[in-house]
Amino acid sequence: MAGRLTPEREAELYEAVLDLLREVGYDALTMDAVAARTRSSKATLYRQWGSKPELVARALRHNKPVTLAEIDTGSLRGDFQAMVAREDDCQMEKDSALMRGLMRAVHDNPELHKALREVLIEPEITGLDAVLRRAVARGEVSVDNRALPYVVHMLVGAFAARQFIEDRPVDKAFLADYFDAVVLPALGAPG
Amino acid sequence: MAGRLTPEREAELYEAVLDLLREVGYDALTMDAVAARTRSSKATLYRQWGSKPELVARALRHNKPVTLAEIDTGSLRGDFQAMVAREDDCQMEKDSALMRGLMRAVHDNPELHKALREVLIEPEITGLDAVLRRAVARGEVSVDNRALPYVVHMLVGAFAARQFIEDRPVDKAFLADYFDAVVLPALGAPG
Repeated sequence: MAGRLTPEREAELYEAVLDLLREVGYDALTMDAVAARTRSSKATLYRQWGSKPELVARALRHNKPVTLAEIDTGSLRGDFQAMVAREDDCQMEKDSALMRGLMRAVHDNPELHKALREVLIEPEITGLDAVLRRAVARGEVSVDNRALPYVVHMLVGAFAARQFIEDRPVDKAFLADYFDAVVLPALGAPG
Repeated sequence: MAGRLTPEREAELYEAVLDLLREVGYDALTMDAVAARTRSSKATLYRQWGSKPELVARALRHNKPVTLAEIDTGSLRGDFQAMVAREDDCQMEKDSALMRGLMRAVHDNPELHKALREVLIEPEITGLDAVLRRAVARGEVSVDNRALPYVVHMLVGAFAARQFIEDRPVDKAFLADYFDAVVLPALGAPG
């Protein structure tokens, strides 16, 4: 398709958007600044992504190329361990800083909230649902286990409490322990 | 003590601070505005509370007069139900709005973060620890249960995911179900 960006160029653009986000925050991140930093035209940016919230959401999504949907190890604990394994401590700390900055913007920008939800949150929830459905199908988790609808709450809590209460970044060791200590027992799944 | 406020006057001041917080947010809330709204002198406010973050933290704390430490029903599930019972759906929604506004301010104001932590967060964690210690002493939860250090994470997740993922306010029915479906099973405690 004419005017279509190469994957390399797209990745370069997303990296520049994330760098700008960390440097100046969401509100001060303008399409002009992205165009200048990446030596592209604003017309290209708008044609490709439609709007700033959409561009930011895509850039964040690009950061996490392995989706949960691709994880299928044959056991729930194995799937959880694979989720942890795909993370990188240093990257998680950078992501946390990004997310803290975005949480402020989300309240003031319903369009950003919607874009984040569609591009970042909903695919993760769909992927998590698939992981859990397979665990139910294998008989590891009872179909009427009452914790099933709350796995996402448990995971959000791991990240939010670690940051706001413990004032420490989430790392792989913490996440792995949380899965074994909290999520698997709540689901009554084999540890 | 000369110049000491009566409990009624103190409650009135805290109510005014919370009203102002909901109306204008933390950043726009000035000691001048509090003084004007409550027809008190700034000198009194500073003498009594020291600083704006401290005043805001105390006002929020005053909102939740029953501390967890006073809850002791004889079973962990009973204690959790008592925690839910002390809440009020309408008040929880107002508190959520307040907290959303404050989360933004917390990042920019280390002093507010510190005050909230000391006045609001640490007493709740201490109270929760007492509730859990009694459950261990009664034999309801094993002393080496690995979910014990994560109860606060599970609870923070209930609130954060409900707001940011589900986009719905926390209410008593949700909280009660979350305790039964997630927290008690993770702790291996009687439901």
